[in-house]
Amino acid sequence: MSEATRKPLVARLAIVGAGLIGSSIARAARQRGVVGHVAVADQSESVRERVRELGFADSIHASSGEAAEGADLVILCAPVGANAAIAAEISPRLKPGAIVSDVGSVKSAVVAAIQPLLPAGVHLVPAHPVAGTEFSGPDAGFAELFDNRWCILTPPEGTDPAAIDAVREFWRLLGSRVEIMTHAHHDLVLAITSHVPHLIAYNIVGTAAHLEEVTRSEVIKFSAGGFRDFTRIASSDPTMWRDVFLNNRDAVLEMLGRFGEDLAALQRLVRYGDGEGLFDLFTRTRAIRRGIIDEGQETAAPDFGRRGAEQKQP
Amino acid sequence: MSEATRKPLVARLAIVGAGLIGSSIARAARQRGVVGHVAVADQSESVRERVRELGFADSIHASSGEAAEGADLVILCAPVGANAAIAAEISPRLKPGAIVSDVGSVKSAVVAAIQPLLPAGVHLVPAHPVAGTEFSGPDAGFAELFDNRWCILTPPEGTDPAAIDAVREFWRLLGSRVEIMTHAHHDLVLAITSHVPHLIAYNIVGTAAHLEEVTRSEVIKFSAGGFRDFTRIASSDPTMWRDVFLNNRDAVLEMLGRFGEDLAALQRLVRYGDGEGLFDLFTRTRAIRRGIIDEGQETAAPDFGRRGAEQKQP
Repeated sequence: MSEATRKPLVARLAIVGAGLIGSSIARAARQRGVVGHVAVADQSESVRERVRELGFADSIHASSGEAAEGADLVILCAPVGANAAIAAEISPRLKPGAIVSDVGSVKSAVVAAIQPLLPAGVHLVPAHPVAGTEFSGPDAGFAELFDNRWCILTPPEGTDPAAIDAVREFWRLLGSRVEIMTHAHHDLVLAITSHVPHLIAYNIVGTAAHLEEVTRSEVIKFSAGGFRDFTRIASSDPTMWRDVFLNNRDAVLEMLGRFGEDLAALQRLVRYGDGEGLFDLFTRTRAIRRGIIDEGQETAAPDFGRRGAEQKQP
Repeated sequence: MSEATRKPLVARLAIVGAGLIGSSIARAARQRGVVGHVAVADQSESVRERVRELGFADSIHASSGEAAEGADLVILCAPVGANAAIAAEISPRLKPGAIVSDVGSVKSAVVAAIQPLLPAGVHLVPAHPVAGTEFSGPDAGFAELFDNRWCILTPPEGTDPAAIDAVREFWRLLGSRVEIMTHAHHDLVLAITSHVPHLIAYNIVGTAAHLEEVTRSEVIKFSAGGFRDFTRIASSDPTMWRDVFLNNRDAVLEMLGRFGEDLAALQRLVRYGDGEGLFDLFTRTRAIRRGIIDEGQETAAPDFGRRGAEQKQP
């Protein structure tokens, strides 16, 4: 690769939080020659030990301030509720011209929490790579996680265009397609494409767990009828998702309100046996599926009927 | 295989409806030497033509009565709304001692529709193989669809035990694990493990399609955050699912009521920022997921972050 031999885009990259996303960024950035030095900080000693064994960091730190010192790009990869504390810790040690970014699934709250804490001359370019799995921790990451996935940047008004360009190029080199929007719009889009889907998946799994008429063993045995796919989503990291809902409350409640209205209407179709209305909805929803496959965000393989032995671990 | 050389369990099998399930049964039964002759009936001329090309039937019929004539086992594989008409058509041509079964996702309505139409001396053993994909039609079927999946039998009270045993053995030879329960209990179990999950998947995809603030293109682009998995379920066959909701109304409304209550409680946790309550629910739902993987109904591969090139078509 010629990319590996030319001067890297980022001389020193600091990753704060070595979970699924942080460890995937470190792996991808090194593998593709995007960075010189990768400094990884994590507050957990066992995670740091594991990062050492996995070998995707050039230096490993207990202190996020130490990792951020001298870094050209610092990416916060902890659950979003931890961002303010981390920003306060790294702030005095950031060099002039450094760029601070993050990977949070909510953006308005992140901008509000971080921006006031950063010194003048440091650029804030929040990012959200729309990619992930239901697993967490440094072992779960892999370098290809961002390939052909979208990364959304939400720079606050007035951000230096050169800083935006640098972060855009960073994500492009990691395999992502990049889009820029306001943080308020981001939070609305993700409420419907990610946050509410997670909430209703957690909810139905919770409902199924507490029935008296149907045993837990029956729920598990007969899960291949559709329920199974919800449990996958509902096994995502609890801390991360708690913070998402605490920090994108208004957009989630707005979209959940819409969902609830539509569900009430659908429930009436079932109650009154309106076959035409049901058929009509069930047909219309297929168009969006086709759009997702055409856009390369999903394969057409019949995963819902997946067979165990043919599935490979990444 | 010794199974292929011994006398087959079913001398003549009739399949009415050559969709995903019907064509998978025909393929599996032939491949495993479970049947002598497979007669396939379908009312669609183009489907019959395709069955001929695919070659998984010994005889192909436009008339279900003709296919059922002389059959030892007749399996109705059309959408459940069509069962009464098919039962009426095959009834006069069934031989004494024949077994009639089906594969419908609802069972009380199926028993009520079919049982009164069958002549004395014919046995009704309804079945529901809990397996499928989001695709439909004779091309979508494959012989391994039922491997290690559960098949639920719901024989009405007083059914001849020998007939139940024969159907149980048939499904066992097709790779399934078999469980017997009442049709009423089946409908309750499937309402929570399959019907309500499908309904809320259809609902959220419908909600997303009709937003003014978020474009359809944005929904598609950023679907990898969770929404994508719902569109897979919501692209299942509209006719089949319309009939499910028309025929399992009471159990679906009951389970949907529970889901709605729980969602209202969860919405309050979000509104009042109850992080502890959210974290608690998000942690509890993981246990059911582990149970499903341990029971072999799902793999632990991180499918939610699946990468296109590594997914294989069956």
